[in-house]
Amino acid sequence: MTRQPRLEIEYCTQCRWLLRAAWTAQELLTTFGVRLGEVALVPGTGGVFDVRLDGEPLWSRKERGAHPEITELKRLVRDRIAPDMSLGHSEKR
Amino acid sequence: MTRQPRLEIEYCTQCRWLLRAAWTAQELLTTFGVRLGEVALVPGTGGVFDVRLDGEPLWSRKERGAHPEITELKRLVRDRIAPDMSLGHSEKR
Repeated sequence: MTRQPRLEIEYCTQCRWLLRAAWTAQELLTTFGVRLGEVALVPGTGGVFDVRLDGEPLWSRKERGAHPEITELKRLVRDRIAPDMSLGHSEKR
Repeated sequence: MTRQPRLEIEYCTQCRWLLRAAWTAQELLTTFGVRLGEVALVPGTGGVFDVRLDGEPLWSRKERGAHPEITELKRLVRDRIAPDMSLGHSEKR
């Protein structure tokens, strides 16, 4: 049984990106808490670092040619699951 | 889409057990890598710290009256998803 909203972080084990993926998960769970149903860490290969929300791709390292910057990723998630929520200092100049 | 074997760690956000849950996830993903399909962090409340593998309860803090010790948890997972796998130094006296 999965819980919605379900966020997935698929990361490359060959590139040793577990720490980056787990850190990203902790940042998102710290910010959104129980607004997120679950955050799944998905071990993969071949340079993958993809973030999906309920199946919708939010970020693909291969397409973007870079890892997601955490504040931008939080905005992408916030705009979908809690549009009225402020990200506090993360958003202020 | 979830991937098997799916391991879930449901943790209490009120008790601030995200770090403990994320650390447990990282230990299991470091040990088992792509043998695990995914590890889902599930924010909960009310003192929950439960670990489930493909829906089967492996550990419930309330039932056991304690948090899982990581080596024991690794044995419980190994016995189910990779029975022939040695846990190396973790298992040697």
